[in-house]
Amino acid sequence: MLEQVRIVGAGLIGTSIALALSAHGIRVELVDSSSAAANLANDLVGASHVGSPDLVIFALPTSALPLVIDEEYQLNPNSTFMDVGSIKTHAIEHVKSSNLPIEQFVPTHPMAGREIGGARGARADLFEVRTWVLTPTPECTPKAIATVRELIEILGGQVLTMPADEHDRAVARISHLPQISASLLASSLRKAPPACLELAGQGLRDTTRIAESEPALWSEIIFSNRVEIKALLQELHGELGGLIESINDQNAIENFLKGGVEGRALIPGKHGGKARAYTHLPIVIDDKPGQLAAIFNECAAIHVNVEDLSIEHSPGQLSALITLSLSSHDAISLSKHLSDVGWNVHPILK
Amino acid sequence: MLEQVRIVGAGLIGTSIALALSAHGIRVELVDSSSAAANLANDLVGASHVGSPDLVIFALPTSALPLVIDEEYQLNPNSTFMDVGSIKTHAIEHVKSSNLPIEQFVPTHPMAGREIGGARGARADLFEVRTWVLTPTPECTPKAIATVRELIEILGGQVLTMPADEHDRAVARISHLPQISASLLASSLRKAPPACLELAGQGLRDTTRIAESEPALWSEIIFSNRVEIKALLQELHGELGGLIESINDQNAIENFLKGGVEGRALIPGKHGGKARAYTHLPIVIDDKPGQLAAIFNECAAIHVNVEDLSIEHSPGQLSALITLSLSSHDAISLSKHLSDVGWNVHPILK
Repeated sequence: MLEQVRIVGAGLIGTSIALALSAHGIRVELVDSSSAAANLANDLVGASHVGSPDLVIFALPTSALPLVIDEEYQLNPNSTFMDVGSIKTHAIEHVKSSNLPIEQFVPTHPMAGREIGGARGARADLFEVRTWVLTPTPECTPKAIATVRELIEILGGQVLTMPADEHDRAVARISHLPQISASLLASSLRKAPPACLELAGQGLRDTTRIAESEPALWSEIIFSNRVEIKALLQELHGELGGLIESINDQNAIENFLKGGVEGRALIPGKHGGKARAYTHLPIVIDDKPGQLAAIFNECAAIHVNVEDLSIEHSPGQLSALITLSLSSHDAISLSKHLSDVGWNVHPILK
Repeated sequence: MLEQVRIVGAGLIGTSIALALSAHGIRVELVDSSSAAANLANDLVGASHVGSPDLVIFALPTSALPLVIDEEYQLNPNSTFMDVGSIKTHAIEHVKSSNLPIEQFVPTHPMAGREIGGARGARADLFEVRTWVLTPTPECTPKAIATVRELIEILGGQVLTMPADEHDRAVARISHLPQISASLLASSLRKAPPACLELAGQGLRDTTRIAESEPALWSEIIFSNRVEIKALLQELHGELGGLIESINDQNAIENFLKGGVEGRALIPGKHGGKARAYTHLPIVIDDKPGQLAAIFNECAAIHVNVEDLSIEHSPGQLSALITLSLSSHDAISLSKHLSDVGWNVHPILK
């Protein structure tokens, strides 16, 4: 049973963990090299003094681990220790070079964050339904792993276990490469005439949002994982070169774009693994309270599970278009059922 | 005074225009080569027959213009005509090769869109506070321009006038380059091991969102504007090559990322992007049929109208995080009501 937790690092991740633990009645205390940061965070979470923590969490950049490991181990030699950094092989190396026995250390990485850093960006539900990767070494004790799993369960995260090197290769592709891509694109806007930027739409904004991330933090992450990242950048460089060469061929451009649609579809939306191809059922409803409830009651009545939903309307309109995302089987059943009972259902899309 | 509008093309843009006009009491009719698409759109907007339109809007890909211009001009020789295509120099060329007098034609481009195409993605507020570019030729009559300006004003758009070639150069950078960047990144995901994709976070999702755009439509846009685009791709290719060469230099990486922060800051965010200020209410539910119905029944019971909804799950989990978008007043009422009756409601976001 987790009763007392000590968190080293009062930034976004550390403070968010502390908020959630505190809300669950677990004693928590944050320490930080900046006492101002520590005070703000401890105030925010209603922290209390932690005498003998079951768990010590290193919630700071991986490069800062060597500065704190030995001291923390000396303070609480019987605790379990974990980190939350982005590059797992490096965290393990740092621990192996320290006095902290590797058996007591669990390397982890929560796949959650915000572009608002620090304690002020913290929120207790930051980890709810997010993947939280564990990359335990073979030496790790079952007790240490159980303690960390209990923490993640309390925070609402979903544990995914994989080897550290596999994790580092994966984040190079799904986290570090998008960061570089966004920065590259945003950086090029510096060459645009000002009038040009007035045409900026949502596409440009979304594609460059993470270019706002903290350069000091991210240069460390990218530098640490540069071997994996370099290979991916070379791959991207080659693909871009190929596109430039075939820019006079409309079919080649279309095939390139189709590759993007295919790749995008691989990102898990709901039930994980490969995203399901949903069938979309458009229904025109009156835009007033009760209509959606009525639709969902019909779904429940015939045991249809709605995977996702979009609602398209705006103030002043008298009707709304809702589009339900369903399995193809459910879409057919529901379409027939709703039509039978008098709803304005349009033909199934794709 | 705009009284009757005919829209050729019942896709996202045409149907969104129609929705807004209809809400303003202006008679509108959509026609489309697909009668299913036209029926869905006309049903959605409450269209009525338009006998003699003041304005005919070509809301279809620029390459399809030659297929409809002459027939539309013959039907309504006294109307004003406009298009909404992405490449203005080409639209003007098509009209100059047709029977439609160039004086009656206004080339335009609304800077608004969604990755959900077709009538089902349409929304009446799609153009609210968005830039809408006009690239009138010197021959254009003041009456034609006034008619189009009236339309844009009704739709809540903001008129920006510039020469057609300048427009085409600008969209290459702020629209077509982001599209290619997103597709390039998304496309590379096809090489990722499946387990890797389970780590996907919001950064990857945002950066690749527009990779879902329609390849047939976008290959035409990119091909049409390939001269402008090629120069930008070569620039990007060079920058990427430079980053690869300096990947062992952490300072160089940090400078590269700072360039991204600077470029991102140039996007006019505050007045351009943000249109719909909803309050977001996160609720954790069991992921099984009937749960959404139950939530919507609670909404109906206290007369709360849900504006939009997102559902978020992770691999293998038993619960889902749903976020309802509501007016701030409704959010407060619903939050209290749901908590009172035992739902797991989280604090209101922003």
